[in-house]
Amino acid sequence: MTALPTSAAPVRPPAGLPGSAAAATSAPTPGGQDDTATDVLKRCRELVRPALVEAVGRLHPWTGEMAAYALGWADTAGTPDPGGSEGKGVRQALAVLGAEAAGADGADAVPGAVAVELVHTFSLLHDDIMDADALRRQRPAVWKAYGTGPAVLAGDALFAQAVASLAEAPGPHAAAAVRCLCRTLNTLVSGQAEDLRFEERPWSGPGAVVPEGYRSMAGHKTGALLGGAIALGAVLGGAPDRTVTALERAGRHLGLAFQAVDDILGIWGDPAVTGKPVHADLRRGKKTYPVLAALAGGGRAARELAARLDSTRRIDGETAAQVAALVEEAGGRTATREEARRQLDTARRALRDAPLTHTAAQELDALFTHLLDRTR
Amino acid sequence: MTALPTSAAPVRPPAGLPGSAAAATSAPTPGGQDDTATDVLKRCRELVRPALVEAVGRLHPWTGEMAAYALGWADTAGTPDPGGSEGKGVRQALAVLGAEAAGADGADAVPGAVAVELVHTFSLLHDDIMDADALRRQRPAVWKAYGTGPAVLAGDALFAQAVASLAEAPGPHAAAAVRCLCRTLNTLVSGQAEDLRFEERPWSGPGAVVPEGYRSMAGHKTGALLGGAIALGAVLGGAPDRTVTALERAGRHLGLAFQAVDDILGIWGDPAVTGKPVHADLRRGKKTYPVLAALAGGGRAARELAARLDSTRRIDGETAAQVAALVEEAGGRTATREEARRQLDTARRALRDAPLTHTAAQELDALFTHLLDRTR
Repeated sequence: MTALPTSAAPVRPPAGLPGSAAAATSAPTPGGQDDTATDVLKRCRELVRPALVEAVGRLHPWTGEMAAYALGWADTAGTPDPGGSEGKGVRQALAVLGAEAAGADGADAVPGAVAVELVHTFSLLHDDIMDADALRRQRPAVWKAYGTGPAVLAGDALFAQAVASLAEAPGPHAAAAVRCLCRTLNTLVSGQAEDLRFEERPWSGPGAVVPEGYRSMAGHKTGALLGGAIALGAVLGGAPDRTVTALERAGRHLGLAFQAVDDILGIWGDPAVTGKPVHADLRRGKKTYPVLAALAGGGRAARELAARLDSTRRIDGETAAQVAALVEEAGGRTATREEARRQLDTARRALRDAPLTHTAAQELDALFTHLLDRTR
Repeated sequence: MTALPTSAAPVRPPAGLPGSAAAATSAPTPGGQDDTATDVLKRCRELVRPALVEAVGRLHPWTGEMAAYALGWADTAGTPDPGGSEGKGVRQALAVLGAEAAGADGADAVPGAVAVELVHTFSLLHDDIMDADALRRQRPAVWKAYGTGPAVLAGDALFAQAVASLAEAPGPHAAAAVRCLCRTLNTLVSGQAEDLRFEERPWSGPGAVVPEGYRSMAGHKTGALLGGAIALGAVLGGAPDRTVTALERAGRHLGLAFQAVDDILGIWGDPAVTGKPVHADLRRGKKTYPVLAALAGGGRAARELAARLDSTRRIDGETAAQVAALVEEAGGRTATREEARRQLDTARRALRDAPLTHTAAQELDALFTHLLDRTR
């Protein structure tokens, strides 16, 4: 087991902006769980970084440049960019903790951690094209910075390298890990298909998306990779099947909680913090949990919201603000906070059901809580 | 070993349109090698089809619909399309013959055959986006028919399913086969990157692409998947490493010959047969072997060609016809035919160097020759 470093400098500003998603969960214990989570994220990033750098270095120089930009390591000129556009590295941490939870050395999970970070980056790259999202982490999305064709290619390169990194992993569990990653990839891509198809469906009446349908989609689109990350680590750490299953389930519910927070931030998040335009999801007419829960709630605000959404072809800035207010009035924001809390509780229960090593179980729990307690 | 079916109905019209690429190779032996090749292609398609249909059936229905369209199985309404837009199935046949050449049953190669057909379809889908190619096999490309975002997604789904099909393959060689596929995928994506980067480079002077550089790119972009297909079959058939290496080498040189013919068809092919616009490659300013060989040849026509290309920002229909004439006059077409012949000879020699079963070696040889002898 890798020792925890003594440094505890937080790598992200603490959550808790007024009106942020922080209220979705219990407040962080001062100096407790939240410090543990930031330490864990830092430790795992440091453990995985050399292999991740090496994997990106194996790409064609041009796709490698786009990958470094997408990972927040460099700007479009290839110059190192210490501006903090790098992701938190949640998925790599889950993979490392998955192995440690099974009693293995976190280092055993590194090929899996590399794979899930590359898959995550690939999926952001391609999803931004599909969703026409021009901004990602406060910078132009790769397709905006390099063009659509090159961004498709960079995503493909990351995808191929992700599978290769895992297929070439040493030890007896590489083949099982590849099968685990493949299941994750198929589910992830299906989830993205469901999400895109939702855009064609009406807000109300026959064929409308209901919260349960949305939950299934989010379980595929977001839950699969978080569940897959932790499962991959466990597989590489030689965990028995039932431990892998429990950890995967925990990660999947964490993903649902994570997505609920994402949906809150997509409507009410501060653009200066989220790095995305205000009301971006509403303007795109995206079916998200807050809106669907608001519509499902009934009542005057819900009816007014439905009428508004059904009658509006393109939602402009002013309409989006009005829609956001109606969603809140109809209880969509509260319902989504409750959904996040419920999914987090389920995830934590799944953790407690598995026979995990004490330290890793505690760190996973702290990380799970921390992830709900975010502003971007 | 699977017995050859007695039916010998050719599934494609014989080659030999005047001025076609048929002259790149020796004329087909009447009733001999060419009949063998069409039989082999048909037999392999029939062997692989059920597993391929099953793999596509595992996709999300929407991406499955796009995949069926891309494979030429259905139109955009999902209605079965017996109009003959289906590919020849070269890669699946190479995989099957790779296993048979190693003395195994062709059925052992089926998961590999499925994987390479799915990878091929994925790469066509994404390459058409990157190259802005609106037509594929005489129909709108997937991105034209369904939109860019959905086409990106369908490609991703095929990619994921390709790896999954192989990772779940029974028998003791699945893990080695996945590693083989990963190498192929990385090389394929690098080749596409090189090809796209060539578009930024000048036709002449410093930084110009020379035929040798082009050959390296084509070896990655086209050779890798043909070499990978045959190698995958051999790996799944339990062939020793040196046999796999020899077969992969044969396939890679076949790919170079194949690409040379493709380049000839891209300039002088009959649009009614190729399914692509006339002079498509020239209009896009694509660096292809005929143009590069013409430029490298020196002489008056070469100098005139260089001046024309360097001074033209966008090549219209009339200019493309003049450029095509200059490329031919400067010897580009003849040089490309010679290149195809040379690469085919190298591929056939690589086959003879490997200890292969007699029938499969003969069938591979017939297939290799047949593939150079095509008009689309």
